[in-house]
Amino acid sequence: MSHTEIKTYMQSVGIAARKSSRVLARAGSALKNNALLAIAASIDGARIELLAANSLDMDRGRENGLDDALLDRLELNAERIDGMIEGLKQVAALQDPVGEITDMGYRPSGIQLGQMRVPLGVIGIIYESRPNVTIDAASLCLKSGNATILRGGSEAINSNQAIAGCIASGLASAGLPEDAVQVVNTTDRAAVGELITMTDYVDVIVPRGGKSLIERVSAEARVPVIKHLDGNCHVYIDDCADLKKAVAIADNAKTHRYGVCNAMESLLIAESVAAKVLPELAKIYTEKGVEMRGCEKACAILSAITKASEHDWSEEYLAPILSIKIVSGIDQAIEHINHYSSQHTESIVTEDFNRGRRFIVEVDSSSVIINASTRFADGFEYGLGAEIGISTDKIHARGPVGLEGLTSQKWVVFGDGQIRQ
Amino acid sequence: MSHTEIKTYMQSVGIAARKSSRVLARAGSALKNNALLAIAASIDGARIELLAANSLDMDRGRENGLDDALLDRLELNAERIDGMIEGLKQVAALQDPVGEITDMGYRPSGIQLGQMRVPLGVIGIIYESRPNVTIDAASLCLKSGNATILRGGSEAINSNQAIAGCIASGLASAGLPEDAVQVVNTTDRAAVGELITMTDYVDVIVPRGGKSLIERVSAEARVPVIKHLDGNCHVYIDDCADLKKAVAIADNAKTHRYGVCNAMESLLIAESVAAKVLPELAKIYTEKGVEMRGCEKACAILSAITKASEHDWSEEYLAPILSIKIVSGIDQAIEHINHYSSQHTESIVTEDFNRGRRFIVEVDSSSVIINASTRFADGFEYGLGAEIGISTDKIHARGPVGLEGLTSQKWVVFGDGQIRQ
Repeated sequence: MSHTEIKTYMQSVGIAARKSSRVLARAGSALKNNALLAIAASIDGARIELLAANSLDMDRGRENGLDDALLDRLELNAERIDGMIEGLKQVAALQDPVGEITDMGYRPSGIQLGQMRVPLGVIGIIYESRPNVTIDAASLCLKSGNATILRGGSEAINSNQAIAGCIASGLASAGLPEDAVQVVNTTDRAAVGELITMTDYVDVIVPRGGKSLIERVSAEARVPVIKHLDGNCHVYIDDCADLKKAVAIADNAKTHRYGVCNAMESLLIAESVAAKVLPELAKIYTEKGVEMRGCEKACAILSAITKASEHDWSEEYLAPILSIKIVSGIDQAIEHINHYSSQHTESIVTEDFNRGRRFIVEVDSSSVIINASTRFADGFEYGLGAEIGISTDKIHARGPVGLEGLTSQKWVVFGDGQIRQ
Repeated sequence: MSHTEIKTYMQSVGIAARKSSRVLARAGSALKNNALLAIAASIDGARIELLAANSLDMDRGRENGLDDALLDRLELNAERIDGMIEGLKQVAALQDPVGEITDMGYRPSGIQLGQMRVPLGVIGIIYESRPNVTIDAASLCLKSGNATILRGGSEAINSNQAIAGCIASGLASAGLPEDAVQVVNTTDRAAVGELITMTDYVDVIVPRGGKSLIERVSAEARVPVIKHLDGNCHVYIDDCADLKKAVAIADNAKTHRYGVCNAMESLLIAESVAAKVLPELAKIYTEKGVEMRGCEKACAILSAITKASEHDWSEEYLAPILSIKIVSGIDQAIEHINHYSSQHTESIVTEDFNRGRRFIVEVDSSSVIINASTRFADGFEYGLGAEIGISTDKIHARGPVGLEGLTSQKWVVFGDGQIRQ
């Protein structure tokens, strides 16, 4: 397709999305849930077609030399299809946030004022490789009453189109417009450029993928973006910490899973307890194969710790590597975190009331935790049921973004003829 | 200043703002209120200096040929200084939203989870002519715990700098950092370009002014923008309307004030009641000098109505002009509004439950009203105490934006050693 053709195509996708968003906005919970379950049934009935489409993508991926990690993310199998179906059922079971009216009360003028939770409208999702994101994202957007435009990676185009077919037939059988969820049918990058600038037809963009994708989308978008950049998470072991809790939390936060955004990447320890707690922790890390890079004071305590560079303090390793800094106390810990953190999730281990209180007030991150592992910061653990991502932005939605983050609130006024004096 | 010097200067402003935002974030309500009252006292004690600075701006404005409306907006006088002082006292009296923790509850893992309302951090305000915006904006940002960078119009530079002096001395006397509120000291446009792209130091931009300013800021900003574009507000008189209420509301919404964003610009009337209600309304509009532009059906009812062009349906007149369309009923009314409206405020006049309900659900605007004038859509009438603007965006803050719109929520987790299984 030429650039003009892509522009025309994307505009038509946008117009159809806007139109179906009006239908979704007034669709009741039962109708949306029926559609989610119909999509699940449609997926279940199309297992053979889905695996066949996916094997085309896998073959081409191997030809194009995709590495094993990418091929693994691209692959669909019976278990992953089960997961997609289970996910749809779970989203159908979630409470629908749309339509809730809060704080309805009278004003001196006699008008009655409240706020109604409403869908955002049209949500554009830009994502890479994993085809199950097509279902995850579509189901959350559908449940929250939004039309969706999905733009997956070129490596998954056959899988995504096959899933799109199941979604369309599920929507149709429930009586909702098929283009309530559209999967962009071109892999041309110009389609992304159109999607993120069609302010008339798209209300918000959620990019899901690597940092370079998200930075590019954010830089070029004219549509608002809900984004997740780094997860450079910290644990601070205060001098008033229960050291047993501290060891368990610092172990879990680092080693429970390495490649996740809520893993601890940097450990801060108050100077007065460092000589006691660091050797105990280092023993665990060494056994588990975690490389330790520390400040000079940390290196002086243990020879197993190599010298950290300035760059280490900002790094999201997503790997068995940990940076360790000995700090004088809570002031320096908070200052370090607010300077180097990516504002995702930070935890303090302390038994002291005032230090815990200061930490949650003064640390400027989307999740602030006292005496628990950073690994809790996700939509399932927070009870959101599912998440479209974890926002490191400050406006609109901060931290794990579930159904509510895909909605807005409008003001509702009831009167009986009031005019302004 | 050269472009490099401006960049360096703006970076230093940003760094100072970020630093003082940490102090403001942990400042209690009493401290912030003391600062607001100290600023009020400082303004009160500097009346002569403020008027002298303003007369420099007024003289230069006259030399540069500013029109009377702009000169009027630029002018400070005793009454307007009283207004600034009163505004500061009112903001001091508002409830502080910062620190509120909501929905604190236990999760199955044993962690206790809630959300804490926190300042956004650093807010950049870009505005034109009216120097009292300096105080309005600074006071709301200060009360909500945010540091502020203010960039006023070049025509008001002396007035704004004089007000900035009062703010700084008020902050200092209350024991808060003087650079918690900074007024940019250069009128070079490049300073705006820096301000709206310093994502490390600025969390949100609020442009206040004409449409061209707001469009330019939105187009070039990398920092999120809370913006107010048009107010093309509609009143729809349904065939089930109480026509007495309808006439009162359609009169008030159009003629109470012409130059405001929540004035009605377009009137929709159900066909079956048009012949009855339109002549009565037209009589009022004609007496008040309101020009009427209508669809063919409206023109057929009354010769005083001239033919509207397609452009009229999208126009925010901010003047005694009204477009009038006869629609077949509520379906066409909702469709017309969702197509042409700027998503600011729309009102339906009806006695019918289902139509009222459909209107508030299906009309995609920041305020939806049943049986009251569109003129109620503002921060004072909604009880927000004051407003930084009326957002026509859908994400973060929609409609009148008060203190809460200048805050965010972070997740707070309390544990006693929980780790992820």
